Parts: sequence; structure tokens; C-alpha cells
Amino acid sequence: MNSHVETFDYVVFGATGDLTMRKLLPALYHRFRDGQIPADSRIIGTARSKLSHDEFRERAEKALGRFVKGDALDAETARRFLGMVFYASVNGAEADSTWPNLLELFGDDRQDKIRVFYLATSPGLYGAICQNLSDKGLVTDRSRVVLEKPIGHDLASARKVNDDVGKVFPENRVFRIDHYLGKETVQNLIALRFANPVFERLWSADAIDHVQITAAETVGVEGRGDYYDHSGALRDMIQNHLLQVMCLVAMEPPGTLGADDVRNEKLKVLRALKPIRPADVDHVAVRGQYGRGRTGDGIVPAYLEELGEGRQSNTETYVALRAEVHTWRWGKVPFFLRSGKRLPAKVSEVVIQFRETPWSIFPSQLQANRLILRLQPEEGIQLSIMNKDPAMDSMALRPANIDVAFEKAFSTRYPDAYERLLMDTVRGDPVLFMRRDEVEAAWTWVEPILDSWRERPDTLRHYSAGTWGPDQARHLLGSNRQWHEDM
Amino acid sequence: MNSHVETFDYVVFGATGDLTMRKLLPALYHRFRDGQIPADSRIIGTARSKLSHDEFRERAEKALGRFVKGDALDAETARRFLGMVFYASVNGAEADSTWPNLLELFGDDRQDKIRVFYLATSPGLYGAICQNLSDKGLVTDRSRVVLEKPIGHDLASARKVNDDVGKVFPENRVFRIDHYLGKETVQNLIALRFANPVFERLWSADAIDHVQITAAETVGVEGRGDYYDHSGALRDMIQNHLLQVMCLVAMEPPGTLGADDVRNEKLKVLRALKPIRPADVDHVAVRGQYGRGRTGDGIVPAYLEELGEGRQSNTETYVALRAEVHTWRWGKVPFFLRSGKRLPAKVSEVVIQFRETPWSIFPSQLQANRLILRLQPEEGIQLSIMNKDPAMDSMALRPANIDVAFEKAFSTRYPDAYERLLMDTVRGDPVLFMRRDEVEAAWTWVEPILDSWRERPDTLRHYSAGTWGPDQARHLLGSNRQWHEDM
Repeated sequence: MNSHVETFDYVVFGATGDLTMRKLLPALYHRFRDGQIPADSRIIGTARSKLSHDEFRERAEKALGRFVKGDALDAETARRFLGMVFYASVNGAEADSTWPNLLELFGDDRQDKIRVFYLATSPGLYGAICQNLSDKGLVTDRSRVVLEKPIGHDLASARKVNDDVGKVFPENRVFRIDHYLGKETVQNLIALRFANPVFERLWSADAIDHVQITAAETVGVEGRGDYYDHSGALRDMIQNHLLQVMCLVAMEPPGTLGADDVRNEKLKVLRALKPIRPADVDHVAVRGQYGRGRTGDGIVPAYLEELGEGRQSNTETYVALRAEVHTWRWGKVPFFLRSGKRLPAKVSEVVIQFRETPWSIFPSQLQANRLILRLQPEEGIQLSIMNKDPAMDSMALRPANIDVAFEKAFSTRYPDAYERLLMDTVRGDPVLFMRRDEVEAAWTWVEPILDSWRERPDTLRHYSAGTWGPDQARHLLGSNRQWHEDM
Repeated sequence: MNSHVETFDYVVFGATGDLTMRKLLPALYHRFRDGQIPADSRIIGTARSKLSHDEFRERAEKALGRFVKGDALDAETARRFLGMVFYASVNGAEADSTWPNLLELFGDDRQDKIRVFYLATSPGLYGAICQNLSDKGLVTDRSRVVLEKPIGHDLASARKVNDDVGKVFPENRVFRIDHYLGKETVQNLIALRFANPVFERLWSADAIDHVQITAAETVGVEGRGDYYDHSGALRDMIQNHLLQVMCLVAMEPPGTLGADDVRNEKLKVLRALKPIRPADVDHVAVRGQYGRGRTGDGIVPAYLEELGEGRQSNTETYVALRAEVHTWRWGKVPFFLRSGKRLPAKVSEVVIQFRETPWSIFPSQLQANRLILRLQPEEGIQLSIMNKDPAMDSMALRPANIDVAFEKAFSTRYPDAYERLLMDTVRGDPVLFMRRDEVEAAWTWVEPILDSWRERPDTLRHYSAGTWGPDQARHLLGSNRQWHEDM
């Protein structure tokens, strides 16, 4: 099913970090096990720590043991996989004397071999690392760079990162990763919409009342408080992941599945977003921060307690927004986006809420149809319909859900998002990565909210951990609508 | 859930026959067990056989034992139910001396008690039985008559039956039963269409390529050859059941769920059917008769062998028709109806075949969406969609079915069609029964086919038992369409 990729060298900066261990190495292992990766490829970890190849392999082996699930891990495959793993102690942001540790691994290397530089470091280092890669002669015509989020913390800083990286890598070799786009169900949005007239015919303001896009987490910030406190839910989740999902829900059919055709359509959505004037912010955006509360795990601490003794913060751990896509297709249909920590369920989903029947001939109260595209935890779709109650004496109706979990229904393992995305970087296919103009358009749209919140700390609402966020998020929907919270 | 009906007397003519034992008594038992039937109601069997009340009750008890499924049969409920059962030996079609056997059961009966006369006899007797009921003074203002199919064997004979019955019972008290309309899934057609905009918005020539309505049986005629040979598949299945189902699929939304509003809409469909000219018959109708063949049960005999030694017959055991509903909604969308005996599967279903995507951007061959409304054996719906194959390197798609069997999904017993219909006759609600004008419109439409076949015996095709009918039925669809035979 999966075609071979060419032999490559995958160089990860920040290789001792959590992302490498939890996601990148397990993803590469799965692709190797599936026979997609030629055995003469190399995975080269770099970081400042002084480790030997074997010490890094030991860490990699432990990571596979923890994060490769089920019976996918077998000793012989892992042994061969670890044989492809190398390590170089490099301080990537500094043009210092550590670079030869990496360069020696490329001593007699072919210049036409694919090289991927994956930057799993602080975004502030992206520019410097790229410059050093170039200065040290490591950037060939077949080299690509992969940038983890966040790309900047506002429009200006994002432009700066893009400019700096762009000095070394042309745009078509810059892969801004958004792992949401690697999720099977997110890609399946394109399939469901454009391969199934039964969906696409319903996909407009004619039939749809509103759309909800939710990414809810049950965890708090825990150990990540220092990073998170500089970011917040709007930057961490909405500006990238949820706006990207919204683009796929709202876009027009692209002319082809080519990267620029698809990304042009996504960009059109971002550019069609109704701009937010400062005076509108309170009407279209709600932010909150969790206080102490009760969850399935018992009493959990407030965000401020997790940050540490005596810390103050106006960082939001919850955001709900109202967006409109001003196009012929969508008119004034609202798109509600929300994301938060310490909510009652871990779920990412798109809810297409259809309009009510124009007229009802039935004795029962009708519920309008709803299509849920579940991204996690269990990818699948659910359509709620009104069905006849098999009672003997009337046309009484009742709502019923047609629910399919893809992994179960199709008896196929659903791969992790990173597996697809890492192979795309090797193949050089950027269709599932964010183009520079998309990232900047997304920042342009959210920036008035960031500006307003910075100036008006009083707009931060509080909610108890284990609840669905501040009450104000409910009012955002309007009186006849409800968040889907019945998980 | 189910409301009580008023106390009634249910008088069944032909009470020793198969229908009474297999369907009517079990249906009444279930309704009684469910608490819907007041215990002072009576079920009075009549037939020519001379039986005592107790002898008939013994037969009834055996029938319950055979045909009430699962744990629904319990001795105490059955005992109380059988206490409501009576018998009168009556030759219903003759004005002879047997009538007092029935009359004595009504000696001091209240005139305002609901009476239902269920004619499970040969249709040739309907007129005479009604006349006798009237002459003997049994027909009150609250009496109804239920007529089993067939109502006639062509338009003229149907009119005669309707005229004769109409001399005694006004139209709103004549219940022409078509048990297909009592099936939950058939009623659910009304709910699915008019309570769910996601379906009704797709329900027209804009989105639908064609519709298939199939009623396939695996059995042959076996012991029923003498009856069947005078009828054939067109009269036995198409003229009533399948045309009725087609009406519910094709009709416009009725103004209310009232009997005449719904039946007016169905009638409009029948009247909108493209008339069949004699010269068209070969292009829109295929008939066949099964020969000997192999089924899951081994080699089974030909229809002619089942009829008996040396018999000849041109009766069709298979029919496929092409109909068009000439309305704004349906334009030239073909409706294909087929029914046959000795086919490979026992299934009744409606297949809504949607049009293909106007354009495909995918590397895979797309299959057009298909919605299957399964009437039996396991009521449910199935939607086939194109879904992304979770492969790593492309937007390869594959077809997938979203399938829901209602009984399992909703954990509710799905009642037999007769349960609902018999209670409707007691309540006096004819919405699920055929009005006179519907029956006659259906005969009007099929009569040119019957005429042609009578004059042209050469149009009878043969097919082997255990196959999906004659090859000509395939050609009827046109080159780009296929019957749904992948059960």
C-alpha cells in the first residue's frame, strides 16, 4: 500500500526532547517496520547534551518501548531500526565548535541524498539554526526544513521567523508542521466532502445552521507551565490547529490535490474571515483560566497553583471564538471554535449542525440533524437523525445516532499523524503543511483579540477545572444553540 | 408508550387459514400482552369447519407456540388471551342457516362497540360476505371491514370488489390491508424523509440517479401453486406492495399525517407514473419463470414441476419494471421495481442510488453514494460513502458502509407489521391502508403490461432457481447501472 521513499538523512534538532521521544522516533519506527524506509537511511539526533551514538540509541530504545503500542514492537525490527540511529552533540543556534560533530557524519555523503532538518527546538532558534546549516554547507538542493509550532507569537514575530528561515530555504522546502493536518480524520474531511455528493450537497448556508470545532483536553498545564504561560490557548491551539481544521471544513473544492491548489483554497478561507474590530472582541471571543476543581481524578489544582507559589498570570487556558467566513457558500453561518484545558472530556471534533426542518408534520419535537466528525480519541463519524419510534399507535419520533468508529469498522490500524507527515517531508510534498501566507493570515485575524486581551485583563473569566469553561462561552452561541457537550 | 384501544370484537372470516394462525393471532397476542387491548374484547374466528370454541382455542394455542418468538410467550398471558377467543362455524358467502352461529355471539351486544370484520378469505367472496353481514344486521356505524389482497386481478375486477363492498361499507370504513405499509421501516420512510433535512434535501433528480425497490424471496411456490398460478409476481407483489413503497419514496410532503393527506400524495405519484403504451412493454418490463436450479438447499425443482405433473403455465415468478414519476421533483429518474421467487437472497429493500460526483480530484475510482433502506430481514439503513484509505502516501479512497440495524442499535423489539395494522383498524385510522382510488390507479398503470403478456407468451423468460432472474432484467437498467445484488 505504502510506496517506498528514497533513502534520506533525517536530522532532528532538539532530539533529546519530549517530542522526539514521544512522537518522531515511534513514527519513524512504524514507517520502517511497514517497509517504507530504505535501510540505508539515517536518523541523526542532535542536541547540546554530550551523548554517544549508543547512549542516544538507548534512550531511543526506551522511547519505543514506552510509545509504540500493541504488538507493533518486536526486538528484531527495533534492533535494525536502531542501527539507523545516530547522534551528534551540536549547539545548533551557535556557530561554535560543536558543528564538526554533525559534519563528520556527512563527510563523504552524496549531495543528492534527501536531507530533512527537523527543528524541534525553541522557535526563537529557527533562524539561527538555518543560517548555521547554510554556513556549514549542509543545505543542498534536496534539503528541507521542518518547523514545529509556534511560528512566532504574533504577526510580526512570525514574519521574522519566516524571513529568517526564508533566507536559507525557499518556501517550497519549508515544512511548517501542524500535526492536526496529519490526522486521518482531518484528511478524511477532504475525502468526505469532495468524494461524496451526499455531504457536499448539504455543505453550505442553505442547510447548515452553524459549525462547532472543539479541541478539549482534560489535562492541565502541569510541568509545561513556563512554556504555556507565554502562549495561552489562542496561540497554542486556535491560531494553528483549529483554524486549519476550519479551513478544510469551509474551503471550496480545490482544482487538484496539489499542494498549492489546496493551500490556495485554505488561504481564501482565512482571508474571507470577517475581520475583528477592537470593539467586537468582547462579542466574538471568550477567554478563561481554570481554577481548582473536581475531575474524575479528584480535586485538581488551579492554573495559578500549577504555575507555582505566588505566580500571577492573565494567560487563558480556555478560548471560545465566533468566526464568520464571508463567502457566497457560508454567508453568515457562524463557526464556533473552542479549546481548553481541564475540561470534562478529551475530544477533538467538528460538529456540523444542520438547520431545522422548515416545517414539521410530526407530533414529536424534532431535533435538527447533526453530523459529528470525530478527530480523537476514536476517529469516526456520527450522524444524528430522527427515526420513527417503533410504537404501535403514532408517528412518534426519537433521535438516533448512526455512529461509526473507523478503526473498528474498517479493521485497520489508524496511524499517528506524524507518520504521514514525516514521510511527506521526505517525499517533499507540502500539501499537509502550512504555507507562509496561511500562517501570517491566521495571525492577522487573531491579532486584534490578542491586542485587546493584553490591554484588558478584566476580560479573563474563571472556570472550575472539570467544567466546560466559563458561562460566557454559552452566551456566545446565541439563545437557540448549544455546545455539543454530551460525549 | 402504546395507548389503549377501545374494547372491540374482531371477527375473522377464514379463521382456520394460514394467515390467521401465522400472523393475525400472534399479532393480537402481542398487542394484548403489551396491555393495549382491553380484556373484555373478543376475537371471533369464523370458517366453514365445525369447531367448538375450545377446539379453535387449541389451534390458536398451537399457533402462538409456533409463531410467537423468543420469551414473549408466557403461559399465564396466553391463557388470558385465549379466554378472549371464540369461534363460530359460518359459511360467510352464503346466506344460509350457519349465520345464527355467529349472531348468537352478538345477541345482547352493545351497538356502539367497535366491530372489525377481517376477510381472510378468497377475494371473490368479499362482496357476498359484506352483503350477508349487512343483511344479518351485523354492520353498525362503528363497524369496519378489512380486505386482504388481492383486490381483484385487474382493473375491472377490482372495481367490482370495491363496488360490492362499497354498497355496505362507506370508503372510510374499508381497510384494504397491505402489510408492507405496516412494516416499521416503511413507515420510517416518512420519518426519515420529512423529519431529516439531510435526507430530504437530497431527495430529487438533482442528486439521485435512480431508485431500486426489490422484494426477493428464496422460496418457490411450493404448496401455493394453484393460487399463485392465477396471480403471478406482478399481481402478487408489484401492483400492491412495491408500488406502495414507491409512493412513499416518491411522494411530496403531505400537509399533515392525516389519512387522506398522506393518501392524496401517494395517489398523485400513481397518477404521475409515465403511462405504458403497448409498444413500450418490452422496454419497461421483464418477466421470468424459474427452472430447476441449485440453491443453498441443493437442487430445487422448476416452477412447472412444483405446479404438478404435466402442467403448463406462462405465469411469471419474476418481474422487473422500469417506472418514471413525471413530476418536477423526479423528472426522468427511473424507478426500477423487481420481485421474484427462488432468488439467491430473501431481502426487501429500497436502494437510493445517488449521482456521481460532478468532478473528481482523487486518484481512485469513485463509487457514487448509495443509501439502502432495508425493510427485511433486518430493518435498518446503510449509507455507502467514499472514505480515505489510511495509507501513508496518497489520498487513495475506498468505499465504506455505514450500516445500522435498528433492532440492535436501538435495543427495541421491532413489531410485526400486522400488530400496527390491526390496531389501526380498531382505532379506525386508515392512513396505512390503501384507498380505493389508489388500488384502481395501480391497476390502471399495470394493466397494459398484463394485456401484453397475455397476448405474447413468448415474452416469458426463464431463469434458473438460485439466480437473480433473467438476463434481460440487467439490460433494463441501462449500461451504467447495476442491480444491488451484493447482499
